Amino acid sequence: MTKKITIAIDAMGGENSPKKNIEGLNIFLEKNHNRNDYLIKLFGDENRIKDHLSKFNIKNDNVEIFHTDSVVSDDETPLSAIKNSKNTSMWNSIKSQIDGNSDISLSAGNTGVLFVISKMILKMMSDVTRPALAGLWPSKKGMSVVLDLGANIECDENNLVDFSEMGAALFKSIFPDQKPQVALLNIGSEEIKGTEILKKTYVKLKDLDSEKNFIFNGYIEGNQIMNGDSNVIVTDGFTGNIALKTAEGTAKFVVDNLKESLKENIISRLSLVFSYFSLKKFKSKLDPRKYNGAIFLGLNGPVVKSHGGTDAIGFYHSIDLCYKIMKGNLMQEIKNNLSHLNDREKKN
Amino acid sequence: MTKKITIAIDAMGGENSPKKNIEGLNIFLEKNHNRNDYLIKLFGDENRIKDHLSKFNIKNDNVEIFHTDSVVSDDETPLSAIKNSKNTSMWNSIKSQIDGNSDISLSAGNTGVLFVISKMILKMMSDVTRPALAGLWPSKKGMSVVLDLGANIECDENNLVDFSEMGAALFKSIFPDQKPQVALLNIGSEEIKGTEILKKTYVKLKDLDSEKNFIFNGYIEGNQIMNGDSNVIVTDGFTGNIALKTAEGTAKFVVDNLKESLKENIISRLSLVFSYFSLKKFKSKLDPRKYNGAIFLGLNGPVVKSHGGTDAIGFYHSIDLCYKIMKGNLMQEIKNNLSHLNDREKKN
Repeated sequence: MTKKITIAIDAMGGENSPKKNIEGLNIFLEKNHNRNDYLIKLFGDENRIKDHLSKFNIKNDNVEIFHTDSVVSDDETPLSAIKNSKNTSMWNSIKSQIDGNSDISLSAGNTGVLFVISKMILKMMSDVTRPALAGLWPSKKGMSVVLDLGANIECDENNLVDFSEMGAALFKSIFPDQKPQVALLNIGSEEIKGTEILKKTYVKLKDLDSEKNFIFNGYIEGNQIMNGDSNVIVTDGFTGNIALKTAEGTAKFVVDNLKESLKENIISRLSLVFSYFSLKKFKSKLDPRKYNGAIFLGLNGPVVKSHGGTDAIGFYHSIDLCYKIMKGNLMQEIKNNLSHLNDREKKN
Repeated sequence: MTKKITIAIDAMGGENSPKKNIEGLNIFLEKNHNRNDYLIKLFGDENRIKDHLSKFNIKNDNVEIFHTDSVVSDDETPLSAIKNSKNTSMWNSIKSQIDGNSDISLSAGNTGVLFVISKMILKMMSDVTRPALAGLWPSKKGMSVVLDLGANIECDENNLVDFSEMGAALFKSIFPDQKPQVALLNIGSEEIKGTEILKKTYVKLKDLDSEKNFIFNGYIEGNQIMNGDSNVIVTDGFTGNIALKTAEGTAKFVVDNLKESLKENIISRLSLVFSYFSLKKFKSKLDPRKYNGAIFLGLNGPVVKSHGGTDAIGFYHSIDLCYKIMKGNLMQEIKNNLSHLNDREKKN
């Protein structure tokens, strides 16, 4: 790792780029004006980036620009991207990691392409069976990590054990003061429930002498994801993606219904005057922009994917996430957890 | 089918039985006092049932009691139940279906045991590859059917096609005026997304000349379950159960946060005075008791499972569901849909 935490940002990825990316950066710089332990490298069209930097009056020694001529298009398929994406802003930001010039990269661009070129450039860590996409999830006790959210449709028990170790490392890097509590997502909490793969994973995680890295809580059901008793929730990418999208849809459905109810007549509208600040706080707590940023784990360097449609505030939260997980030594935490796993496997 | 719609109720299943079961029945009788096209058969302890009937002053020619000495315990495993559950209130209510004395049965008792003895007594319909558990799900446009919710952890393409046909039949029996719109739950809406089994199911459903029975909308993602564009959502039992529980947990999380926010200070509490009726309506719309009742499909007779912990209102909704789906000729609808499927398969 370079001495400063170096974050490579694809300034051209996502809707309204590079405007929202630079605006998000501006929020990050303002919130961290008293820090000097980071370096931001912006990859993309130099002139357009400079335009937006000057709009926000950003003159900061901790921000550097690296010009690229091209951008990964949203229509690009992962397959065509291998040929076409070289020297794009996305490609070069990830490339800077393997060249040792950055610690982590962030893009709000084409998801499929980002995964393919991340894997191609960074390659998998030698001890990892499969990379995984981890997300942040609000919970009663704060925030949890859920993985895999869609990188692997089908997973075996070794993949799921790796995800547990990597997810625990990620959680620890973000929340150094909390002990990771790992659980497997299942359709019942009894040991005999679920698929054969889940049962095998359960046995492996129970056998694993993991106490120093995390506590294994066994199975949880979907309704327990958000109660906060477990803060690292492990599942295959198909199930994780369905759970994530279902939760998003349900939250939207409930909130839409609430809005409709509170606007239906004059009296209920009047109530909005009195509940304004409380409802604002309620909305802020569940603001999806706070949880923006999925982390691609298991490669020789972490890659963060921001939602393409998010705004400057959402993009700021992704930059902040990059900073936090590098500050928390994510890569070292992963190596620690996995080496411990390998010790056990060699013994067996 | 007997001339009257005959509903066999396990009066002893679930928490607070037979009280809540009889109280729920009382609501049903009051709401249907002008109808005479149904017959309720109550299975369980005759004296206790009579006690509760008299408490609610129920004297109705459409209610009959069938005494049983024993009850399926909550601790019973499906395996031990095969030996121990004979002549229980649950067993005899299902048995009355195969004997031709009832059209449908309802229990709030032990779920695992209910499935096992339902399958044992009623047996699978000859054209069905696997039975499925279907549930009701609130949507922007009213109510949808989701299946399988946990009867089959793993499913192949033939199972999923059967579930589509049975789910469409169920939806049509409840909402005769609406055309079922079937969708497969997946992690993307493009044809190339998802597991091999989903892709094969997609092709089969596209090929199926199903227009007269339902419209096939292709894939939907988890966040589209509740938008109402599709009203029959098909998935395997593992994924369906995760989605259902995740939705329950998310709704609870959002509503709990809302409550907390609105009670946090005097001003926001004051708003509750003005929003009282609107919030009550909001709460009522999302009241899980309205969606209480999962339907076990694919056997020679439908079995409805009420949530064990629900109250009289929830149990009433399950009785009402039994009445509605029999009024809507569920079994005939299923046979229609499946015979059509078989015609196609024979041609291929």
